[in-house]
Order: sequence, then structure tokens, then C-alpha cells
Amino acid sequence: MRTIDWVDGRIIAVEQTLLPEVVTTLRIDTVDQLVDAIKRLAIRGAPALGVAGALGVALAARGTGDVRVEAARLRAARPTAVNLAWGVDKVLARLDDGPDAVVAEAVGVLEDDIRRNRALGFRGARWLVDRLGGGPVNVQTHCNAGALACVEWGTALGVVRALQETAALGHVYVDETRPLLQGSRLTAWELARMGIAHTVVVDSAGPTVIARGMADAVVVGADRIAANGDVVNKIGTYPLALAAARAGIPFVVAAPESTIDLATPDGTLVEIEVRDPAEIVGDRATPALNFAFDVTPADLVTAIVTDERIICGQPLG
Amino acid sequence: MRTIDWVDGRIIAVEQTLLPEVVTTLRIDTVDQLVDAIKRLAIRGAPALGVAGALGVALAARGTGDVRVEAARLRAARPTAVNLAWGVDKVLARLDDGPDAVVAEAVGVLEDDIRRNRALGFRGARWLVDRLGGGPVNVQTHCNAGALACVEWGTALGVVRALQETAALGHVYVDETRPLLQGSRLTAWELARMGIAHTVVVDSAGPTVIARGMADAVVVGADRIAANGDVVNKIGTYPLALAAARAGIPFVVAAPESTIDLATPDGTLVEIEVRDPAEIVGDRATPALNFAFDVTPADLVTAIVTDERIICGQPLG
Repeated sequence: MRTIDWVDGRIIAVEQTLLPEVVTTLRIDTVDQLVDAIKRLAIRGAPALGVAGALGVALAARGTGDVRVEAARLRAARPTAVNLAWGVDKVLARLDDGPDAVVAEAVGVLEDDIRRNRALGFRGARWLVDRLGGGPVNVQTHCNAGALACVEWGTALGVVRALQETAALGHVYVDETRPLLQGSRLTAWELARMGIAHTVVVDSAGPTVIARGMADAVVVGADRIAANGDVVNKIGTYPLALAAARAGIPFVVAAPESTIDLATPDGTLVEIEVRDPAEIVGDRATPALNFAFDVTPADLVTAIVTDERIICGQPLG
Repeated sequence: MRTIDWVDGRIIAVEQTLLPEVVTTLRIDTVDQLVDAIKRLAIRGAPALGVAGALGVALAARGTGDVRVEAARLRAARPTAVNLAWGVDKVLARLDDGPDAVVAEAVGVLEDDIRRNRALGFRGARWLVDRLGGGPVNVQTHCNAGALACVEWGTALGVVRALQETAALGHVYVDETRPLLQGSRLTAWELARMGIAHTVVVDSAGPTVIARGMADAVVVGADRIAANGDVVNKIGTYPLALAAARAGIPFVVAAPESTIDLATPDGTLVEIEVRDPAEIVGDRATPALNFAFDVTPADLVTAIVTDERIICGQPLG
């Protein structure tokens, strides 16, 4: 199953807000529909947003509106993951070559995502097994950096899947990931489908799982990696990095090269999306602040695994 | 309003599972009813559990059952907070003096709680203002260590209240405290009643509030403090301590002397209650592990403020 795909001139995407209870797909014919799906997280995950950005430009190029205007709206649908803008810009660069070239470029981004994440997964698994001196590797993860965050092979969960395929996987601990529960709704569902033993914990228990020696490594995705190696990812990633550093276990970020943003010197300069407080407190009048992402400083990151390389401390450029 | 009280030979307690939507009280006439209220967290919070333990022995002493058997059941209702056993044992020591002496001792524990927590609150507020070189002090807290966790004056929120009364309080950030939301349900409700400006964040955002300089100090309660200074408190406390250490802000534990357990050498030896996974995942089949508490190592604790002293690094005995 592909999380997002291009079929007969439109986008077909898994509706992620209804999982795991309801498995259904969206048919998206316009940039308006796509922007709505991205804003309400029906389509989410940095690599999938890159593909969505690419396919969105293809939709626009086949439509009657001003492609550059629609592309700008798409780019702005969510601010933090750099992949969205990356996907838009990559395809937009082909605009002068006509609609067919634009669509071909977008479909290329989609196909590339699968291949690249697969490479990333096996590279990360190999690195972990080497680093830890063999398996089984027990993993703590956060949010969903699985197939549902990409096209059909995950980033962090791509590493987990590659560990499984090489018989080096132990147990996977999954933070529930408040407020929208991408861990307990999406990651647990993916792991169950793959037959991988897993346990959900509340987000604030992740550091305790690590402190008690139940996890050998933390593996997470990323929404943007700054030039200095700071990692912006789902809110709740930073506490896992602090706990991993204290416990002396590897904190591994699994992300495609397209997540690296050399134009942003460090993580403090990344715009952190603040979402509706109602996602936390519902219709109560309680004041709430809903940061969607946090920043993990580079010194807490043991390794960044991409589709092309392992980055351990050296400059990213 | 008292969270727990002794009125006409029975316990009257606020039913905390229904807050903030419904404010109602429980009438408790038997140890069975009390054990049930404690297990389902209708009565919760380490100091309140100490008082409940004390009053429970008074109920038993006025009943017809074997007081020591009932006291043992009460002691075992929840394993982690040492105050429950402390309250039971303190009152049980008067058993040979007859029921009236037992009741008088229990009521003494209750009245003492108010006086002691009030002293604790002002001591903590003074220490914080001294340490930070003046107010206003912005505070990050977790769970509920307020009046609802005590009789009528909180521990961590007692410090907050004392800061307010001395015009030294800034803003209070409250973790929602999954899975049972004692932060967004109870602490936010208490702060609103006191007219204190506050904001709820998801638990995993607490470290980001700290990293972004929005909080000047972390102030939390405790369920048990081991002889070496390790602090056992609600799951999610440890990540705040890690973040506070990284940010260089004080991590302050506010707890009465009765929370200190010199018989337990360090935090790793404390039994951590594991509660029903359904509190996290509801009726989904997803495997989940529900640690109710975590351990913050002593080296991450800047100060322990009790009703009698400030402990900064020196031995607790």
C-alpha cells in the first residue's frame, strides 16, 4: 500500500486522521483539497509532505489557475517541515518545460522516495548493529516516521523494518505522541501489520524506558535539519535525546537528504508551528499552547542517517 | 475548601476523577470505600494519601473489624507514595490507647498537613526569589501537587501560591499529565480559581518550555524521596529535570518531611506502580505499559523544600 500516490491524474492518499479505526483513501484533484488535507494532517510526515508538494505542483500544472500562486499556497500550508517546500520547488523548476515534464518530475520524486528510504533504512540498521555490537536492538521511537509518513517505506520505522528483515530487531517502544496520537494510532498500527512486537507508553515515559535500560537506541525522523546539525522534529523528541545522552545510548535521526536545510544555520531559527490549543484541551476554556515541534541540539544527536550517508558530528554541507 | 476532611466520624473528600466538570464530594464510612477511592484516584496526591491513611485507621478503629488487618489493606492500596504507609503507621501506633486517641491522632495529621504545607510554600517561594535574584518567577510544574493533593494548601502549588501572595509570581506552565490529565484537569482548575495566569502544554513540551527560556524554575511534588535524594514522582517528572539541568534553571521538589523515606537507600529500589494500560489506549488491543511514576536522580535535583528545611545536596538523614 502506498500512503500517497499519483493515479489517473490525481493524488490518492491514505486519510490518516481516521486510522486505525477506519482505513480509507482521499481522492485529491485540486491544490485547495491538498492544502486542506495537509493542514488537518490527513497527509503528514516530512517525506510524504515532500511528495505531496511535488504532486501538488503537478495538479496545478494540469489545472487552469496560476501555477506559481498555487505553489506558494501549498508551500505555506505547514511551516516547519522543509520537505514540503523542497518538493514544491523541485517540480516548479520544470514549469517552463510544460505540464507533462512537471508531472514526470513529480512522479519521479514519488518513486525516488521509496528507493531512498529503503536505502536509508538498511544503512541505519547496519550502523546500529555495528555500533551496538550485534542485535537484537530494542528501539524507542516517537510519533510516526513510518510508511505513513512517506510513500511506502518509513524513515525511522524503515530502520526498524530493516532491523527486522535482518533478524536484528528486539522490541519497539512507541510514545503515544500527544496531542494527535500519531504513535499510538499510526506507528502501533504499522508495527502490528508488520508483526513487530511493540509497546505504547505515554510520551513522558519514554525517558524512563531509556533510563531503565529497556531501549538500546532512540530512532526518530526529522522535519528539518539545520546546517549545524540541530534537528527539528515532533514535539517530544528533545526529551528522548536528553534521556539518551544521560543513558549513553545512541540517538539516531533517520531522514532523507531533502530534510537537510543548509540555508538555516541552526535550529533556533526554524519556525515552529503552533497549532490549535483545542487539540490539547478540547472545548475547555483552559489556556493552552500547542507547539507541534521541538529542537534537539546537534550535540545530543549521535548520528543522522540519510539515503546517502551517515553524519556523525561532521559538518552537514 | 478541604480536599479531605473528618466530619461527624467519617471522611469527606473531593471526588477528583470528575473534576473540573463536576465538583462533588464522597462520604466514606469504611476502609473498603477508602481503598476503592484511593485505587481509582478519587483521592490522590502524596500528602493527601498520608492523611487518608491516617483517617482510614480512625475509621477502622471505630468499626468492628480487625484494625491491623484493615490497616494493612489500606497500606497496600497504592505502593509508590510513602506517605500512605506513613499516615497509617503514625496513627496505628496509638491503637492501644483506644479509639478516641486514634481519632485524635488522625485529625492531628490532617491539621498538621495544612500548617506544614503552608510553611513549605513560603520557604520555597523565598528560596526561589533569593536564588533567582527577585521575581517575577515563571514556573513549570507537572501533575497536581496542589490543594487537591493535600488538605487545603499544596506543595508545589503551595510554593506557587506563596509566590503569588508575595507578588513574585510570573506565569505557570502546566503539563497536561497523561494519561489521567491531573495537570489539565486539576492543576489548571486550581490555578484558575486562584486567579493565576497559566498555560497547559502537552507533557513532552515541558522540556521545550524550559529550553526556550519561558520558565525560570521547575517546581514539582514528590511521592517518595529516597535516602540518597532520588525523587520518585509522577511519570514525566524526570524529563523536566533533564531539561532544567541542561538549561541551568533550578529543579525544585516541594514535599513534606513525611515524603522522605530514609529506609530506602536510592530511587531504583522504590516499587513503581504500573497501572492499567487501558488508561493509555482505552479499549484498543494495542499493547501498552503504564508506569505511574519515574525516578529523578538526586544529582538533577537543585533543592528539596520541606516543611522544616531546604535540602541542597547534603545527606537527607
